[in-house]
Amino acid sequence: MPEVHPNTDQVIADNREYTLFSWSVQNQTHPIHMTGGKGSYFFDADGKSWLDMASQLININVGHQHPKVLQAIKDQVDKMCFAGPSFATDVRAELGKKLSEVTGLAKSFFTLGGSEANENAMKMARLYTGRDKIITRYRSYHGATMGSMSASGDPRRWPVEPGIPGIVRVFDPYMYRPPMGMTAEQWEEGSVSHIEEVIQMEGPHTIAAILVEGITGSNGILIPPDSYYPRLRALCDKYGIVLITDEVMSGFGRTGKWLATQHYGITPDIVTCAKGLTSGYMPLGAVIVNQEIADYFENHFLSGGLTYSGHPVSLAAAIANLKVYEDENLFEHTLELGKHLGERLEAMKAKYACVGDVRYIGLFSVLELVKDKATKEPLAPFNGTSPEMGKLAAYLKSKHIYAYTRFNMIWVCPPLVITKEELDAGLDAYEEALALVDQMILGPVAAD
Amino acid sequence: MPEVHPNTDQVIADNREYTLFSWSVQNQTHPIHMTGGKGSYFFDADGKSWLDMASQLININVGHQHPKVLQAIKDQVDKMCFAGPSFATDVRAELGKKLSEVTGLAKSFFTLGGSEANENAMKMARLYTGRDKIITRYRSYHGATMGSMSASGDPRRWPVEPGIPGIVRVFDPYMYRPPMGMTAEQWEEGSVSHIEEVIQMEGPHTIAAILVEGITGSNGILIPPDSYYPRLRALCDKYGIVLITDEVMSGFGRTGKWLATQHYGITPDIVTCAKGLTSGYMPLGAVIVNQEIADYFENHFLSGGLTYSGHPVSLAAAIANLKVYEDENLFEHTLELGKHLGERLEAMKAKYACVGDVRYIGLFSVLELVKDKATKEPLAPFNGTSPEMGKLAAYLKSKHIYAYTRFNMIWVCPPLVITKEELDAGLDAYEEALALVDQMILGPVAAD
Repeated sequence: MPEVHPNTDQVIADNREYTLFSWSVQNQTHPIHMTGGKGSYFFDADGKSWLDMASQLININVGHQHPKVLQAIKDQVDKMCFAGPSFATDVRAELGKKLSEVTGLAKSFFTLGGSEANENAMKMARLYTGRDKIITRYRSYHGATMGSMSASGDPRRWPVEPGIPGIVRVFDPYMYRPPMGMTAEQWEEGSVSHIEEVIQMEGPHTIAAILVEGITGSNGILIPPDSYYPRLRALCDKYGIVLITDEVMSGFGRTGKWLATQHYGITPDIVTCAKGLTSGYMPLGAVIVNQEIADYFENHFLSGGLTYSGHPVSLAAAIANLKVYEDENLFEHTLELGKHLGERLEAMKAKYACVGDVRYIGLFSVLELVKDKATKEPLAPFNGTSPEMGKLAAYLKSKHIYAYTRFNMIWVCPPLVITKEELDAGLDAYEEALALVDQMILGPVAAD
Repeated sequence: MPEVHPNTDQVIADNREYTLFSWSVQNQTHPIHMTGGKGSYFFDADGKSWLDMASQLININVGHQHPKVLQAIKDQVDKMCFAGPSFATDVRAELGKKLSEVTGLAKSFFTLGGSEANENAMKMARLYTGRDKIITRYRSYHGATMGSMSASGDPRRWPVEPGIPGIVRVFDPYMYRPPMGMTAEQWEEGSVSHIEEVIQMEGPHTIAAILVEGITGSNGILIPPDSYYPRLRALCDKYGIVLITDEVMSGFGRTGKWLATQHYGITPDIVTCAKGLTSGYMPLGAVIVNQEIADYFENHFLSGGLTYSGHPVSLAAAIANLKVYEDENLFEHTLELGKHLGERLEAMKAKYACVGDVRYIGLFSVLELVKDKATKEPLAPFNGTSPEMGKLAAYLKSKHIYAYTRFNMIWVCPPLVITKEELDAGLDAYEEALALVDQMILGPVAAD
């Protein structure tokens, strides 16, 4: 249970004085001092509980401080805390086998996070195909190391460009805002045929891989039409291109399945994952490859590695975490609660002038906010913010609701263990905040 | 204590069947099944103890299963296993402050390993200076993600080139083999003046940073002459270039000091570290920047991050690990035992025909092996191996001595907790192996 920290001012001052915060102008950071958590809540140093509607960075799927995962970590620490990447270990065997089973793929290469997983996936695809180029999408994020950052279409890549050579970007299955003035119907066809046109122009024999997020996460939960993945899979097969899906955010229960692509009945050639693999209890990522690619590396050099590939404690955390998903039927719970979440989101879209679109699958969802539903003018510009978005975020913070907002969007991605009552309490606060936004865009009278 | 594992054949088979091993042709891997360890030894599934003369990947500085580090990890797991990177935590404050104290720098940005630390260090130097190019050295390794791999001069970069733009490589302070037929005396001067010439040709206003390993590790413990670092520091000051030292391998006690550069009386602008920061018990890396760079990011956007920046358990492991260094006087022990190691290595160089050079500082050392001391012909070619090197490695393995060999070199980098008796036992086995190599290159009669 939360307690008041005796010396929180000093802790916060020392955090600011001695450490750098990511993706920030340092003098604009006002960090919350976190002291613990339980389930869907974390605790601050003032003894307050926060409802975590973002699962931290959409990673803590089994919730805060799940006792079974904690115990598995401590047991492995006592048994063997470290083994180098060239060693066989029992946890490595167990997790490798489990990941093969749940993904339908063959072998795993272990990293520490999603960024390194995507770096290695691209490298493997290049080595396997002997080709250089990687097709990625604009509204995507694959990590912050140079290869993964270059693969991202997200503005976070801008400050470090030109990045690596060979990245070719295409448009996304963003059905609320199709590019080039197309209708959603046109773009359902165009979102894949456009990729084939790009392949033709780039030269099919030069394309090693298409790398896409299973379902795009931090660029707005862009859920593709049902036809998208089967057609993308066919395109890759036609041209001998490796299909890599980045399931770092969308995988491991977030959408109610092991992989988001399992909703679409296709199997990628390579899957990358992290976050929900361990719920973040320990750092771990993986590149999971199909049999053909695994076979290739049987007698070709796999040119990649890191000191902590196969860290035993990370592997033990993952094994326990996946067991919690199964033992507690969390995927079924996610699918069921996801239906309720979808109904509430649709009702919010109908009720509030500022809700332009809602997109949801499992407990992976977003509200896209607008100034005007007819014109779809965003509530904040691309890569920017606005007083309205600031108000929304500040209101939720004042209610100790922890939510992820970016540009003109606000996410609803709570831990998969959240109860219906907790979720409803969180969504009620979102509604109060949306009402405030409506007042700002409509004026107080019109909103009444 | 080591025990026989009931089912090791299956564990090894499953490791091979379901996981990929780094830097390997998979069908040539023959992994040892590790089951535990204690101090300078680790245990295999046959119940055998191995003397770890490589500290795994030159990381497990406090030795295997140090009880104080294990306890600190378990305590943090119970308290708070995860907090996102935007939160203040007490461990983040404590480690940040400690790293500032021991390095003389200002602020730390936390990553998971050395690769990401170097990625972020280069990014920060580019943002801070507004310049693009990074000067690095040929015989260097900075990690396997695209930015760090490109920065490396090591052949491990070859399969993934061209890599990122803007890397300019210079030659190393490799005094045993100066480039272009120079003498060691000429190269003591030339190793830095050469860098200034390159700066002139590239345009000083285009160079963001010079990135060098504190002391080059996996390319052969290349210990620079005493004048090297003061002159490099002056060069960076002259042209406003950020001096980044990668202390991933050479830092945190490996040479008997917090940083290898502390032997040379200079302070870099940015230090990157990992490995010995936690001894590998938990994955952690850091970018530690000076006050000027920290100040720059007070009001400029720090464009980098990762889900696990500031992972509480990793930070707790580091705090405990650094405390073990201090409480057990491990740096003093390292310096003292390092003297004995140096004497033994010099004696080996005098005694064995195949030992061309020995280089050592603290417990960071290497023997460079040759077919002929006069011509310095290497015992294995650059980026290759040879029957003699294979024999050497196989002999040590047969004696359950775990050693790191590469090209024509064999390292001696045991845990810092190793006793004189353990070290001598290990070195005795090295000598037996060197005698076998001498027989191969001289013939059995000449070697007698």
